Amino acid sequence: MIPNLQLTEDGRLRHLLTLEGLPARILTQILDTAESFISVAEREVKKVPLLRGKAIFNLFFESSTRTRTTFEIAAKRLSADVVNLNIATSAQSKGETLLDTVANLSAMQADMFVVRHASSGAPHLIARHVAPHIHVVNAGDGRCAHPTQGLLDMFTIRHFKGDFHNLRVTIVGDLLHSRVARSQIHALTTLGCPEVRVVAPRTLLPRDVSSLGVHVHHRMETGIRDADVIIMLRLQNERMQGALLPSAGEYYKHWGLTPDKLRWARPDAIVMHPGPMNRGVEIDSEVADGKQAVILPQVTFGIAVRMAVMSILAGN
Amino acid sequence: MIPNLQLTEDGRLRHLLTLEGLPARILTQILDTAESFISVAEREVKKVPLLRGKAIFNLFFESSTRTRTTFEIAAKRLSADVVNLNIATSAQSKGETLLDTVANLSAMQADMFVVRHASSGAPHLIARHVAPHIHVVNAGDGRCAHPTQGLLDMFTIRHFKGDFHNLRVTIVGDLLHSRVARSQIHALTTLGCPEVRVVAPRTLLPRDVSSLGVHVHHRMETGIRDADVIIMLRLQNERMQGALLPSAGEYYKHWGLTPDKLRWARPDAIVMHPGPMNRGVEIDSEVADGKQAVILPQVTFGIAVRMAVMSILAGN
Amino acid sequence: MIPNLQLTEDGRLRHLLTLEGLPARILTQILDTAESFISVAEREVKKVPLLRGKAIFNLFFESSTRTRTTFEIAAKRLSADVVNLNIATSAQSKGETLLDTVANLSAMQADMFVVRHASSGAPHLIARHVAPHIHVVNAGDGRCAHPTQGLLDMFTIRHFKGDFHNLRVTIVGDLLHSRVARSQIHALTTLGCPEVRVVAPRTLLPRDVSSLGVHVHHRMETGIRDADVIIMLRLQNERMQGALLPSAGEYYKHWGLTPDKLRWARPDAIVMHPGPMNRGVEIDSEVADGKQAVILPQVTFGIAVRMAVMSILAGN
Repeated sequence: MIPNLQLTEDGRLRHLLTLEGLPARILTQILDTAESFISVAEREVKKVPLLRGKAIFNLFFESSTRTRTTFEIAAKRLSADVVNLNIATSAQSKGETLLDTVANLSAMQADMFVVRHASSGAPHLIARHVAPHIHVVNAGDGRCAHPTQGLLDMFTIRHFKGDFHNLRVTIVGDLLHSRVARSQIHALTTLGCPEVRVVAPRTLLPRDVSSLGVHVHHRMETGIRDADVIIMLRLQNERMQGALLPSAGEYYKHWGLTPDKLRWARPDAIVMHPGPMNRGVEIDSEVADGKQAVILPQVTFGIAVRMAVMSILAGN
Repeated sequence: MIPNLQLTEDGRLRHLLTLEGLPARILTQILDTAESFISVAEREVKKVPLLRGKAIFNLFFESSTRTRTTFEIAAKRLSADVVNLNIATSAQSKGETLLDTVANLSAMQADMFVVRHASSGAPHLIARHVAPHIHVVNAGDGRCAHPTQGLLDMFTIRHFKGDFHNLRVTIVGDLLHSRVARSQIHALTTLGCPEVRVVAPRTLLPRDVSSLGVHVHHRMETGIRDADVIIMLRLQNERMQGALLPSAGEYYKHWGLTPDKLRWARPDAIVMHPGPMNRGVEIDSEVADGKQAVILPQVTFGIAVRMAVMSILAGN
Repeated sequence: MIPNLQLTEDGRLRHLLTLEGLPARILTQILDTAESFISVAEREVKKVPLLRGKAIFNLFFESSTRTRTTFEIAAKRLSADVVNLNIATSAQSKGETLLDTVANLSAMQADMFVVRHASSGAPHLIARHVAPHIHVVNAGDGRCAHPTQGLLDMFTIRHFKGDFHNLRVTIVGDLLHSRVARSQIHALTTLGCPEVRVVAPRTLLPRDVSSLGVHVHHRMETGIRDADVIIMLRLQNERMQGALLPSAGEYYKHWGLTPDKLRWARPDAIVMHPGPMNRGVEIDSEVADGKQAVILPQVTFGIAVRMAVMSILAGN
């Protein structure tokens, strides 16, 4: 990770590739700007003209309807022109290199690339090669990062808890394969959260997890106790059938968030999930639909956060 | 079918799910509003700002380029922002439930869902669970209903015949598998059409057909005689190869609309078809391209009718 | 080819189907109009309202993300509403004829069809059957023509060389399967270029090549000597494995443009390529990324040229 790639010489955001290395000042700028966009969605006309006449290319080398849709809505709400490119099935298959594809799209006078790629680091590679006026937003790369998801999680926590300085935040689940968890941990630490815990079976923890400055737990009871915020991660289907886990049922028994386990947390704890949920695997329906869940507000805030990122980038 | 789901407490249209149970007053409101949109397409700038800043999601769980396109054009002509989602290939395949998918899309602050689904009743299920400000339009569900198609047919009949009160309308073809025919029969009855006939081989008629208040014929000669309006239904390819019919050639011989058979109708009868046509199966090219065919006007009116539905819903 | 199909009775452009038979006056009108659009892309708001409220349908019977994207961007920059239709997977597969599909789309009140089709002549067939107010642009049909690509090449040559009257232009590569080369040769001849050469192995030359008024070479040394403009064609992957060529390595050795071979041309010669490039097959990376390459400007000019074509058609 090369944090400087993301910032201009005078310290403004040029690309959003990862939350790693981003100063608190930038994170807070994004959250504050997102705050101002929440009200746009409540207006009669849900549009602001900030990006009118700008061309935003959604470059999805890996398909993800949900993420693509949130960026498309955010861009249209800023009055930008959006072009969706499903690159997986296109020039790449004609033998063109990634950098040639990107050089071509740059030459079409794009203003911003929103990039989703199965390979970690692809958005960084693109950012290093685009023309100076083009901004790159990472919409998820391999296991590496998914910074706008991390930011919308921070927005959600700040919205419901006001501040990060007295919080215990627990992240539960498959940290090994999650591109969200790393973004979350970096952001929480940078924003001053004093205690971040992770709970997972040993097989689903990355080796370097303790170097991230988190408290590692393997049992829900200790991991969740007195938490203010619980972030459940999605257990991908392929993991359930793999060698890393005994079965989905076993996983649910030990690490699935049920009403019983939730009682170990603080009574006003909030429950988050990046979606799509596996009900009955990592989360029980009663919790998912319960009063403490803020899973749907996360989605709503995600639009405002993506509007904030795009408008800050375009303004820099 | 729960008609009340479609109406607000004070009797205005909240969702358009089926024509069944919709009062004549609402049907007429839609047709009258569509009338006012016909002229928009003839202007230099084919746009009105009625839905500016609204987000319309085309949720196609089953692919249908033609229907999706007509809704997309109608929405853009109303200045709405349109997001196309081909859900078949997306979150659903990740194991998310239909209601979770819809809850997520609602949280992205959609204003309207246009829903196409292979299962009958899916749009009703969605309508029962969306946030109060979101409107649902059924763009075809299973064998159940396709209300905007039914409405554009009514618009076409009224346009060419002026009134429903003295008309004989004959619907010909595969009523068993048609989601259009039911919508048509309900609308015709509600709007005061005194005589609706259906003509089909016994194997392509639903069992409850007589309970719909129609006259059942098996031979074209009696079914078409003195008709003012003839609506030909599409014979789907899979039926031709199935056990329900001897062959496409046999079908054409008995129930295909040829110039000879058309002579049994009134000389000023109009011929309709929902498209796409199987020329030489349910309709002869000479009829399809002839003076009595109003098949292409149906398509044009379809845009105006969809604009009417969307603008009425958004205004309620 | 029926040139008159493209022109109105008083000699204005009605459809753009092929560059064959188009008078120099029209070609120059397009290039001059494109010139005026170059500056649009450099503005803060990259939009002009020339096609506001017009509906442009991208009808892609064959998928081509790159070409579709350039037309979509051009149309949006003119403020048109764009509807993308991937027809391959749609009504066509339901047994509808091409002309019925087109008649239906016409009835949706399209103003312009941008057509890509694997069969030569499909755009002509469509142009012969659309309503009088609809314009057709050929975005590539079979091996026949790709006129906007030819036009952007002419724009690029004029941009860098000022004039066509003293130029030696060499086209290198697979002329047999290229839909671009024919468009280029016709345009160059019409615009007054005194010497057009083609260089290719015998197996990749069309039989009638000499009737096109070009000088045929089989060796790069004589074909490139003193050239002002070198246009490299893409060698499609399937050719490399076919019977027409020994191997990609052999092709590169004889007809691939390397720095050594480029020295035979004039020192200020420009190198063009329609993309996507096969580096190390028809072009060496050092040339592709070198000072004489104008491959990315071609892409940029392509947007302006497509804006010009669409705005001229819509104005006629």
